[in-house]
Amino acid sequence: MSVEKLGQKAKLAAAQMAVLGSQEKNQALLAVAEALLAKKDEILAANAIDMEKAEENGVRGSLLDRLLLTAERIDGIAEGVRQTAALNDPVGEVLWMRTHPNGMVYGQKRVPIGVLGMIYEARPNVTVDAFALSFKSGNAVILRGGKEAFETNQVFVKIIKEALAEADSVPESVQMLEDPSRETATKLMQLNEYLDVLIPRGGAGLIQSVIKNASVPVIETGVGNCHIFVDESANLLKAKPIVINAKVQRPGVCNALETLLVHEAVADAFLPEMMAELEAKGVELHGDERVCALNEKVIPATEWDWENEYLDLKLAIRVVANVEEAIAHIAKYSTKHSEAILTESYSASQKFLNEVDAAAVYVNASTRFTDGSEFGFGAEIGISTQKLHARGPMGLEALTSTKYVIYGDGQIRG
Amino acid sequence: MSVEKLGQKAKLAAAQMAVLGSQEKNQALLAVAEALLAKKDEILAANAIDMEKAEENGVRGSLLDRLLLTAERIDGIAEGVRQTAALNDPVGEVLWMRTHPNGMVYGQKRVPIGVLGMIYEARPNVTVDAFALSFKSGNAVILRGGKEAFETNQVFVKIIKEALAEADSVPESVQMLEDPSRETATKLMQLNEYLDVLIPRGGAGLIQSVIKNASVPVIETGVGNCHIFVDESANLLKAKPIVINAKVQRPGVCNALETLLVHEAVADAFLPEMMAELEAKGVELHGDERVCALNEKVIPATEWDWENEYLDLKLAIRVVANVEEAIAHIAKYSTKHSEAILTESYSASQKFLNEVDAAAVYVNASTRFTDGSEFGFGAEIGISTQKLHARGPMGLEALTSTKYVIYGDGQIRG
Repeated sequence: MSVEKLGQKAKLAAAQMAVLGSQEKNQALLAVAEALLAKKDEILAANAIDMEKAEENGVRGSLLDRLLLTAERIDGIAEGVRQTAALNDPVGEVLWMRTHPNGMVYGQKRVPIGVLGMIYEARPNVTVDAFALSFKSGNAVILRGGKEAFETNQVFVKIIKEALAEADSVPESVQMLEDPSRETATKLMQLNEYLDVLIPRGGAGLIQSVIKNASVPVIETGVGNCHIFVDESANLLKAKPIVINAKVQRPGVCNALETLLVHEAVADAFLPEMMAELEAKGVELHGDERVCALNEKVIPATEWDWENEYLDLKLAIRVVANVEEAIAHIAKYSTKHSEAILTESYSASQKFLNEVDAAAVYVNASTRFTDGSEFGFGAEIGISTQKLHARGPMGLEALTSTKYVIYGDGQIRG
Repeated sequence: MSVEKLGQKAKLAAAQMAVLGSQEKNQALLAVAEALLAKKDEILAANAIDMEKAEENGVRGSLLDRLLLTAERIDGIAEGVRQTAALNDPVGEVLWMRTHPNGMVYGQKRVPIGVLGMIYEARPNVTVDAFALSFKSGNAVILRGGKEAFETNQVFVKIIKEALAEADSVPESVQMLEDPSRETATKLMQLNEYLDVLIPRGGAGLIQSVIKNASVPVIETGVGNCHIFVDESANLLKAKPIVINAKVQRPGVCNALETLLVHEAVADAFLPEMMAELEAKGVELHGDERVCALNEKVIPATEWDWENEYLDLKLAIRVVANVEEAIAHIAKYSTKHSEAILTESYSASQKFLNEVDAAAVYVNASTRFTDGSEFGFGAEIGISTQKLHARGPMGLEALTSTKYVIYGDGQIRG
């Protein structure tokens, strides 16, 4: 089926979705969760084909692991759908309502966006997660998963559509590109007539390609070159576990620490032990001259180290003269995701909170908390690093728009 | 100066703007208003050059009038700046704040977007309006006005910058492209490193070109193919003044009526008088077969008439079988700006409000109310017809983003 035809179907489905009540949506989601559990074998069989192909193509360890499904992982995916069903439905909420001086009553109401597009990479669980969040928020979705997960994704979508049809819901609310080529992806990026927004999820390369090629509105997600600044007044005992947590707990995610900035007044007191602890956790250290002078195993940092996410057990470290220099470094290199200051100074904390431009700005806590579930949204479709529409973790509300509704009685404009 | 250089300057200015208090911003805006009044002669002289060139280039009546400034119009522009100073400052508002189970206090705060871009056409007053709204909301702005208003715009920006410098504020918060060519406009559309959003204001051609060519986030504005549906239960006495108001009061604006849909059960009772009244106001009527049969002066409507905005004293009229057919017509042809039903039926009103997908949906009132000042926002930078970020009239709040702020005490993620 052509990308345009998928768009038409999704647009028709979106009109049906927009008027579904929460109860109908929740029942359909529970039916989908049941179907995923009932058809585990079918999913595993499709996944085995994807895995085999990937191994033939020489895909390595962690990438291969992202692709892999097990009975347990399918349980988790189905549980995620159930949890999405249990979330509050944002659609229909009236944000405010007023009376115009002429007597018209008017206000703003939350409505679904319409048709969402998702372009993503290897993890096949994104297929189900993205469907569940789109469906719960009353939207239709067009999915374009990674070609590595092609067979698994097809089976997921088939099972979802069947379950929705059986539940007498809207099976066409989920569409998946049948041809995972670059050409069809580009068509999706320019499907302005049918697509209301495109959300890319994946590495920096994928996201930049979507930003460059899309004419539909895009929400930029996920690239996080995150910093922690250890101020001169920081409680150094509290600082160490925060740095370890931010760097080591899950180094491959976007809210992990990538560059540590340390005030020169505490560099000698703080860094030697901190670096030893990081090394003990297997972290490879890159540093400026002063950091290298403290520890001969540190690799001299280049511009590349300040500019990029390692997404790995590697950390760049720089000594700065004061909070202003730390803020300037962050302004230059940050991707505006998550930034933290560790300090006991009231003024420094306020300065950092006010002047650092990022989706999430922390005082005395790990950057790892920038996450939909930690912020109480229950689930997230991604973490926006742009400033329009949604910034930071995007839950169900981020998948809604608004509509002005006006109740008149013959009013005309004077 | 290159577009990139303007971008750098704007980005630096945005960081200064972000931390300005309301009082400082308001004083600077009042100083700008004073300066515009004090330098009226300089503005009029520049405008005279633009007018002369436009006349040489054969620019016609209403377009020429849009370009023209008078002493009175400059008073109005300066008054607009004063009114913007008097509006509430949305920046710094805390939208919510909660305590995480681990004791962290976290919440969402309104912040400026950063650097806005505006691409617009002939009216030179947009230069000042866009600056004032951007400045009040703590943003820097890069302007690209129409080449017809080039001299006037340059003088406006010079006066604003001088007034900001004298007031010890941020003169670089307003930048204007010095070269109004298509090449520099395209560069602005792709200035992702420095520009956070681009808002085009103008005709459908300009807006489509920006959507197609921009890689920075765009807010689509202004195209309004608006409908009124007269239901079988409508109060026909109230319907007539609403239709006249929506079509005739200001036919060149985006919230004006373009197509009238009439329930077949009231077509004979309603249309003959309605059409006579519209004709008496100089409205040229285009209609489907049934409408043509009622009045021989009606021009048979083609697909073009349903698809386009006239922005003129012209109206397309179609008879439909029921509210469902009216909603389907709107779904097919609407640009999702403003849509109205005139009805006394509770069910029909609810159906229309729920099922019509538009920025503003009315019952028993004129579509002409879709406007920032009517909705109580004080001023508007445009009317968004997309669903992301802002929908409908965009006031100061639409020029803000948010930031999560997190107050911790050593929290790490488990």
